[in-house]
Amino acid sequence: MEVTNRYIVTKTHVDGAPEESHFELKTASLALTVEPGSNDVVVKNLYVSIDPYQLNRMKSYSSSQSAIYFSVSITPGEGIDAYGVARVVASGNSKFEKDDLVVGLIAWGEYSVVKEGNMLSKLDPMGFPLTYHVGILGFSGLAAYGGFFEVCQPKKGEKVFVSTASGSVGNLVGQYAKLFGCYVVGCAGSKKKVELLKEKLGFDEAFNYKDETDLKSTLKRYFPDGIDIYFDNVGSEMLEAAVANMNTFGRVAVCGVISEYTDGKRAAPDMLDVVYKRITIRGFLAADHMNVYSDFISTTSDHLRTGNMQALEDITPGVENIPSAFIGLFSGDNIGKKIVKIADE
Amino acid sequence: MEVTNRYIVTKTHVDGAPEESHFELKTASLALTVEPGSNDVVVKNLYVSIDPYQLNRMKSYSSSQSAIYFSVSITPGEGIDAYGVARVVASGNSKFEKDDLVVGLIAWGEYSVVKEGNMLSKLDPMGFPLTYHVGILGFSGLAAYGGFFEVCQPKKGEKVFVSTASGSVGNLVGQYAKLFGCYVVGCAGSKKKVELLKEKLGFDEAFNYKDETDLKSTLKRYFPDGIDIYFDNVGSEMLEAAVANMNTFGRVAVCGVISEYTDGKRAAPDMLDVVYKRITIRGFLAADHMNVYSDFISTTSDHLRTGNMQALEDITPGVENIPSAFIGLFSGDNIGKKIVKIADE
Ligand SMILES: NC(=O)c1ccc[n+]([C@@H]2O[C@H](COP(=O)([O-])OP(=O)(O)OC[C@H]3O[C@@H](n4cnc5c(N)ncnc54)[C@H](OP(=O)(O)O)[C@@H]3O)[C@@H](O)[C@H]2O)c1
Ligand SMILES: NC(=O)c1ccc[n+]([C@@H]2O[C@H](COP(=O)([O-])OP(=O)(O)OC[C@H]3O[C@@H](n4cnc5c(N)ncnc54)[C@H](OP(=O)(O)O)[C@@H]3O)[C@@H](O)[C@H]2O)c1
Repeated sequence: MEVTNRYIVTKTHVDGAPEESHFELKTASLALTVEPGSNDVVVKNLYVSIDPYQLNRMKSYSSSQSAIYFSVSITPGEGIDAYGVARVVASGNSKFEKDDLVVGLIAWGEYSVVKEGNMLSKLDPMGFPLTYHVGILGFSGLAAYGGFFEVCQPKKGEKVFVSTASGSVGNLVGQYAKLFGCYVVGCAGSKKKVELLKEKLGFDEAFNYKDETDLKSTLKRYFPDGIDIYFDNVGSEMLEAAVANMNTFGRVAVCGVISEYTDGKRAAPDMLDVVYKRITIRGFLAADHMNVYSDFISTTSDHLRTGNMQALEDITPGVENIPSAFIGLFSGDNIGKKIVKIADE
Repeated sequence: MEVTNRYIVTKTHVDGAPEESHFELKTASLALTVEPGSNDVVVKNLYVSIDPYQLNRMKSYSSSQSAIYFSVSITPGEGIDAYGVARVVASGNSKFEKDDLVVGLIAWGEYSVVKEGNMLSKLDPMGFPLTYHVGILGFSGLAAYGGFFEVCQPKKGEKVFVSTASGSVGNLVGQYAKLFGCYVVGCAGSKKKVELLKEKLGFDEAFNYKDETDLKSTLKRYFPDGIDIYFDNVGSEMLEAAVANMNTFGRVAVCGVISEYTDGKRAAPDMLDVVYKRITIRGFLAADHMNVYSDFISTTSDHLRTGNMQALEDITPGVENIPSAFIGLFSGDNIGKKIVKIADE
């Protein structure tokens, strides 16, 4: 059987804020069968993850492109791989059968052909909605869990600051930190997000960074006794201000620097603070923390079942809406994990 | 007995490059006796250490001033404590006797009155010149040893870059790194220093950073396969360039940022590199690494005895020359550990 597969491509490299004009919805006919002897798996995509790092892959050049295999450069005109949940329609790989649910690197499109060796595994939903496996039980969750517990090495009672706190990773860091017994303040880009953090997610405090003019004083106000841990999702001035407010032996986990993805604008932390306060600033990728993967899944699914944690999701239907969902990440349109629903389960 | 003690004070706070006019040689009469009941120790200073961090103590404000007790603010008009070697002339403290050699926090002057609780211990020279105990076997040595082995966590064969490599700490980092089996490149501020590094200290390569216009390309040239460890003594553009050239899981030990002490000028490392290459940037103080102190002393004195390590010293005589010796640190006048000799042994 053959179908018409609709999928998203970039028309050019994207070196700045992404815009609709950078993207195109392509169509191509696709056989829903596998050639004899091939190990390919053909899947029907159900939900795909929309992530800021894809922008670094779209650039003419970014140091991200040599980091790890799923961050390689995106070639204009070609399909874009992305994390997501799908259903097998044909399989040349003995690990997968027709109708299996799978999770892994699929594509920003209606169907994906997954080659042998690419990241794909059978999915046991464990009674949770499939979207949870894209976000809270997927790479956003692992980034938050590994980043917070492994990179930040928290101690109970420590004071934690999280940026893009209502985002996919940020909201989970805040929830983990609260459950662990830390004092948690988050920042986000709207009044609505700030209220959500305080009222629904149990953050001790939250503020809208867009209302602030002097971030160093703002953080001083929220952390009169200093910050022990800063979980950085934005970089630039916020990182600079956080370092100025860090305590001795403070730790900064650099998960991402979204404010630097679009314009490359940077702000330098004061290295005198780094020396004299013996601060550690450490970049990490979720994929480096597979050693805590089973802990992460069991802890998080327990918290979800007992109602101690909540999944914050922001789902848009339709493959054609991937570009706008993606563009919206850089203007703060999303609240929680941004997912595009491609097809009914 | 009473003497006239000559000592150095600052006339004002120093917020920029230090100049002769910031300093004054004061005199005051001092009794070389201890009041009954007092625990004071009066010492005659022999050698005092001249260190860049003193500038941060002289500023109107610096975050260094709240870091650790010996980095507190220097009050204009008052004596300045500094590491050094001295001989006891009178003691109210049962741990010290007249004529004992001691090492610890004394003063930029001819005599010091050391209060109970201040850092001071009896010195066993172990057959080495007394100046070694100010530099290579003192805090410069501990900064190099603790910073390299504990903070950088080197592996044999790794590629190490050291800035201010002919300075007191830098030259030792290079020597430790070579002895440990790393590939070592240093930078320094003159042709003479560069030659010394390559010919006398065994660095694999060295360059004069003042001859370079594009530090990123320079480092790329010296490290075609990337830098694993950067031991940072200068901060700013050199830190930025090093981060751009770091390998995956690279480590930056921030020992000091001398180029930022005088003008506060900073340059921001690219945080995308920090994330995707999972770089760790960590500030430290020698005093945090007392856990390796006895290792440091035994390893270093063994290497000195076998001739595997060399002490690089730059000694000026005369208490009145402390200001110029100190000022010279910021224009690169010194080669190796800068020490002022105050009196004959
Ligand atoms: N290291 C890893 O393995 C890993 C894994 C996943 C994600 N990440 C990184 O983590 C960060 C968050 O990712 P996510 O998936 O959770 O995305 P997200 O936070 O759900 O979405 C992006 C959010 O960033 C904020 N933002 C956009 N432009 C900004 C700017 N110029 N300044 C400040 N905030 C801005 C917006 O929220 P506001 O309304 O609050 O501005 C937006 O909603 C990103 O930097 C991403 O690259 C890293
Ligand atoms: N963390 C700790 O516990 C600890 C302990 C000791 C020292 N330190 C720090 O380590 C660094 C080196 O200290 P040290 O005692 O070994 O001093 P040093 O290197 O012996 O003397 C300072 C040297 O810095 C270089 N320099 C001066 N201004 C510079 C500038 N604007 N840009 C680049 N280089 C400049 C000069 O050499 P060139 O000719 O090469 O320019 C000068 O000789 C300092 O940052 C210091 O604060 C930290």
